[in-house]
Amino acid sequence: MSEATWELVETGFDIRTAKAWEGLFTLGSGYLHTRGSLEEHLLDDPQNTSFLRMPANVTAEKARPNQLKWGTFVPGLFGPHPTLNNEMVNLPWFLDLTPSVAGEKLDMQASATTGYRRRLDLRTAVLQRDLTWKTKSGAVLTLCFERFISAARPSLSVQRLTLLADRNTAVDIRAGIDADIRTSGLDHLTSQSFRSERPDTVACTVTTNGGDTVDMAALLTGVPTAHVTCGAREGRISGTIHLTAGKPLVVEKRSTVATSRDLIPRPPLTVLRDAASLTFEALQAEHAALWRERWERSDVVIEGDDRTQLALRASLYHLLRCHVPGDDRVTIDAKGYAGDAYFGRFFWDTEMYLLPFYLYTDPERARTFCDFRIRTLDGARANARRYGYRGARYGWESDTWGIDGCPNWQYGDHEVHVTADVVYGMVHYARAAAPDYLKTRAAETIVETARYWLDRIDRRPDGSPVLLGVMGPNEYTPISSNNAYTNTLVSFALRTAAEVGPQGGASPDECRLFREVADGLPIPRRGELVLQCDGFDQLAEPRFDELWKDRTTGFANQVSQERLYRTKCLKQADTLMLMALFPAMFSDAECRAAWDYYLPLTTHDSSLSVGMHALMALRLGLDKEAWAFFQQGLYKDVDVAHGGAAEGIHIAGCGCNWMIVVHGFAGLKTALDSDTLNLQPRLPSALQRIAFPMIWKGIPIQVDLSRHQCAVTNRGQTALLLDINGRSATVAPGQVYTHVLSS
Amino acid sequence: MSEATWELVETGFDIRTAKAWEGLFTLGSGYLHTRGSLEEHLLDDPQNTSFLRMPANVTAEKARPNQLKWGTFVPGLFGPHPTLNNEMVNLPWFLDLTPSVAGEKLDMQASATTGYRRRLDLRTAVLQRDLTWKTKSGAVLTLCFERFISAARPSLSVQRLTLLADRNTAVDIRAGIDADIRTSGLDHLTSQSFRSERPDTVACTVTTNGGDTVDMAALLTGVPTAHVTCGAREGRISGTIHLTAGKPLVVEKRSTVATSRDLIPRPPLTVLRDAASLTFEALQAEHAALWRERWERSDVVIEGDDRTQLALRASLYHLLRCHVPGDDRVTIDAKGYAGDAYFGRFFWDTEMYLLPFYLYTDPERARTFCDFRIRTLDGARANARRYGYRGARYGWESDTWGIDGCPNWQYGDHEVHVTADVVYGMVHYARAAAPDYLKTRAAETIVETARYWLDRIDRRPDGSPVLLGVMGPNEYTPISSNNAYTNTLVSFALRTAAEVGPQGGASPDECRLFREVADGLPIPRRGELVLQCDGFDQLAEPRFDELWKDRTTGFANQVSQERLYRTKCLKQADTLMLMALFPAMFSDAECRAAWDYYLPLTTHDSSLSVGMHALMALRLGLDKEAWAFFQQGLYKDVDVAHGGAAEGIHIAGCGCNWMIVVHGFAGLKTALDSDTLNLQPRLPSALQRIAFPMIWKGIPIQVDLSRHQCAVTNRGQTALLLDINGRSATVAPGQVYTHVLSS
Repeated sequence: MSEATWELVETGFDIRTAKAWEGLFTLGSGYLHTRGSLEEHLLDDPQNTSFLRMPANVTAEKARPNQLKWGTFVPGLFGPHPTLNNEMVNLPWFLDLTPSVAGEKLDMQASATTGYRRRLDLRTAVLQRDLTWKTKSGAVLTLCFERFISAARPSLSVQRLTLLADRNTAVDIRAGIDADIRTSGLDHLTSQSFRSERPDTVACTVTTNGGDTVDMAALLTGVPTAHVTCGAREGRISGTIHLTAGKPLVVEKRSTVATSRDLIPRPPLTVLRDAASLTFEALQAEHAALWRERWERSDVVIEGDDRTQLALRASLYHLLRCHVPGDDRVTIDAKGYAGDAYFGRFFWDTEMYLLPFYLYTDPERARTFCDFRIRTLDGARANARRYGYRGARYGWESDTWGIDGCPNWQYGDHEVHVTADVVYGMVHYARAAAPDYLKTRAAETIVETARYWLDRIDRRPDGSPVLLGVMGPNEYTPISSNNAYTNTLVSFALRTAAEVGPQGGASPDECRLFREVADGLPIPRRGELVLQCDGFDQLAEPRFDELWKDRTTGFANQVSQERLYRTKCLKQADTLMLMALFPAMFSDAECRAAWDYYLPLTTHDSSLSVGMHALMALRLGLDKEAWAFFQQGLYKDVDVAHGGAAEGIHIAGCGCNWMIVVHGFAGLKTALDSDTLNLQPRLPSALQRIAFPMIWKGIPIQVDLSRHQCAVTNRGQTALLLDINGRSATVAPGQVYTHVLSS
Repeated sequence: MSEATWELVETGFDIRTAKAWEGLFTLGSGYLHTRGSLEEHLLDDPQNTSFLRMPANVTAEKARPNQLKWGTFVPGLFGPHPTLNNEMVNLPWFLDLTPSVAGEKLDMQASATTGYRRRLDLRTAVLQRDLTWKTKSGAVLTLCFERFISAARPSLSVQRLTLLADRNTAVDIRAGIDADIRTSGLDHLTSQSFRSERPDTVACTVTTNGGDTVDMAALLTGVPTAHVTCGAREGRISGTIHLTAGKPLVVEKRSTVATSRDLIPRPPLTVLRDAASLTFEALQAEHAALWRERWERSDVVIEGDDRTQLALRASLYHLLRCHVPGDDRVTIDAKGYAGDAYFGRFFWDTEMYLLPFYLYTDPERARTFCDFRIRTLDGARANARRYGYRGARYGWESDTWGIDGCPNWQYGDHEVHVTADVVYGMVHYARAAAPDYLKTRAAETIVETARYWLDRIDRRPDGSPVLLGVMGPNEYTPISSNNAYTNTLVSFALRTAAEVGPQGGASPDECRLFREVADGLPIPRRGELVLQCDGFDQLAEPRFDELWKDRTTGFANQVSQERLYRTKCLKQADTLMLMALFPAMFSDAECRAAWDYYLPLTTHDSSLSVGMHALMALRLGLDKEAWAFFQQGLYKDVDVAHGGAAEGIHIAGCGCNWMIVVHGFAGLKTALDSDTLNLQPRLPSALQRIAFPMIWKGIPIQVDLSRHQCAVTNRGQTALLLDINGRSATVAPGQVYTHVLSS
């Protein structure tokens, strides 16, 4: 297997792409995440600039012009912001490990360096940076930085710096913790105290304006003269090492984080002490072993296109990195804990784009997504009450308590489909992994969302239900009526509520009402065309040729929001997404009509758009288009030249990339659409093979698709029923079933 | 003439209504305005609390819970606010004139007082407060505070305090200037410096974050021991007077304000020096003389209902107070310079509700409103450019530069009718007072607005124009298409542009296009019913009975904005207002259909709603309803029990009150609808007489309407053509024409 498909490599330092690499190189254990910042940072790029970040149209918001952007995140650790509501707090930065020679600090912009190379080994989740530094003093140093966040000890960051000089050289080493940081321009820290624990160890305790306490400690080894200096907002361990020409020396920094909301208490000094007897190699080994297990459960092998393979692995790496095991107080925020642009909050992405990957590779983890919604039911009830409704209303941007933090009313007030998406996710989970889930744990939640819908839905004079004043997934139509996507999802959720009503505390009358409204909600149509919403075809023509001159950046960046809002332009697939989610509900002709009508209107300003188009193209037999859309979405994060992951990972896009390969190319019907494993493979012509493990209704299997055959291995204990291109079979445990594909 | 119809009287101090009286008792010279705050303020009501005021739905925003609210305003003096854009700056407070006895400061909550009475003499614009104070020391003091802002010296505030004690008593007097104030929670002052000019005079210079400099000086006389103390943000003159039992003593405070944007420089010390030889009585006499002139030009006499007379005079008083003579850099802000709730900005109120009063009583002043729009043409062009349009787009909330400061995008982006309202105002002004205005001074501006419309208007596939994505005057339908009000006003403006195009720099092709679009913009209808906008009848039923339990407060306070936005509820007259503005365009049947359809849907959450209903009711012969609506709007400011003018004067409502009497009860057709003076009187049954002066196309006249006759006096130099109830006549200069009314 080629290393080239397992390594993301930055081959030279370029300040224009540095922030994108910083996001892409984010490391994490689920519990703790740090962006791939340079250990010595930059000379002139302050991370403590205060500003008032205002609620803005997230599509067109301009990021602050920092060259790099630190990010240290513990999922779910939120604090209030005066204009943005609760947001995830960017914690003190502990990666600092800075060499200086004769007063010259290493700096990627000011110093003379050669041979710069950074690589993230996706298999082991270790980041390594190599470079040669010609210091002003004349000495030439070869430096190798390595680091990882331990999968085995999720609060522990391990760093190693190997130094080699061409002559005897004294090198000053600084290893600090910097608490002078901001989140969205705000200082969330209400107190900071630094202390020296030992000459080689600095510790700090900070409190946040969300009432949390965060403890950190950092230990520097390999520097005999180490001593600690504590400032008001910074603590550092410093010392000098003396390199002998040609003899490498190694220094190590280990940092740990603990917070007052940890499920498992891990006091920083205890964590450091417990690891004290273990070498870097030993710690790396236990870490890598866990990552190996993850990949075995999840890797998708692509043969025929190494670039595709690598980009897909990058997506899978971030999906594996950022799920928080065993913690249903959070799901995955919209930037994959690799940036705070979306406030660390939880969107519909959870159910619609992230759930499938976990559901079919690690259903236990998928369950925490659904449990999160149940845990935050009271928050959802509070959201509903705030609008004067009964029941539960899930927030467009949930914080850890389920309270909607969305500071822009057009989304927060009107993008109500998320409450139905939550139920869709629960049903998906239940069908794939835990049939009892709906009627037991989830029933009350589902009924509560249905009660919200009954209050939210209006009636025409003839009594027929209508859902007015909503924003569908296409956020460029802000307030519309009978959005086809929303109405369908709401009907689905209401039907589910009618089914689980008795267990969820709904009266028979309520259940009847749920069903009646579910059946009555209209889908606007004009002939074969499903309309996005009532009157969509009365909106203005988008006039892209005239108004969208620069296609390298989004339409929303080139016209006013006011124009977007009156125009027939789509930010992302809306009706098409509906058809992708409910394939059996729409005929091929309807899908085709929608494709022909909406595609020319679609800007794909949302990174989530192209993936759904890839899936729909496959449905329509448009393999070439499907491949093109797949490729368009696949490189979003790794395309550093166009910003990539600068503001965070497009984690929902990562999930969508997996969905295209598994549900699209391998043609796996979801558990919502099929009780048996059902594959309708369409291997792209660019590829020779796709192979991946998954779990189908509790049975671990391996799918191996090549041009001429599709093989399914039953690795479980029970017989597997399957259907490949309409041919049914039963595969006994341990058996491989091979279906020969007609070409 | 009864004093009761010229005096607003507060007969006792009640903290629950104190803020409303404070707003209602605002004094002003046009140049300078101060709210009717207590001279000694309150013990515990800090005016320097910083907070971050966020953009909010102005209808439902809750004011800060201050008990009183200082306000010192120089129109047009704006400074930037981080969340709200440029806002009028609340200037240092100079009214302080506080007596203390033996360490006990007078305080309306803590002190033992009786006989409290405040009265604003509307005729002279003098505020007087009387009370008796039983001090803790045992002395009983009778106090009389008087004050006015000089109409003759518009930067001068004159205060007098007359004290009388029942025994010999030493009274400490404090007279200060307090620069520790906020506007919308923000400290706009970037520097303050206080200095002592003489023992009895304190001066200060402050700079604002808008780059303006403000100089103030205060002089205290009658206190021989006066001395000045200067702090960082406050300066005060203090001293002690010794009252002899039964012998009144008088102290006076005179304060002046000058700013770096004054058209006429009036250095504070010079102003004080120039007035030094004049007694309080002399200053008051020259002030009252000017107010007498104003009233002669504008008073509306109402006989038969003193309560109505007084409330109407209160409206006229504030209209007379708050117009800024000879300054076209401002118009009148939405709170009549009696509060900063609406940021001191200029709305469509200028043209639609304020212009008529000035236009028909003091056309020279009215002209500054139109000139303001021409002066701010570059700001309007910048607004248009910001959206990617050519031409000029007037801001929903203009600052003094014409830049739209509206911080809520739904209004700022979508309530575009203001740009057409501006042209409507210009045409109204021209027809009534200066026929050449349109083709000379205004032509370029009008053409520029038309160019904006051409870019803003979309076309259907058949080429017909449509105006999509707008908010009409009914702000509860946020983004709609073909709003009848907006489309009609835009057509009116485009037709005007086609007429003045050649003078305004428009090509013949442009003029043809203006006319074509004007003719093509649709008015949505369903049979005889003019629809507010496309699809209005598809919105949700408002269900007022169920959702609007407390009718003492607005519907918007009891439901979410989200519900408002999908509901067939009206904040204010929208289609009805259109019909009131263009009476000849709609048949009685159409008006009646609109009335019957919209009235049950209308919340009147806007204070501007009921006035338009009064006018429409008269059109429909619904005299009883008209009177009820008139009464509902008339007391808005004087109704202190319901908040009244606490946050400022509803100055557009004041203008509307005048419009109802003159255009409604006296039935004056506007100059837009009639070339001759045309009256169709409908004297309300509650009244015996209405009489008012006005100027009709340059001819000063007097209208005197009683139950049995309508008399018109021509006070001008040329013959007056008139039409009363269809009967035409010519009235020679100096003649009275009397039309006998059939009852």
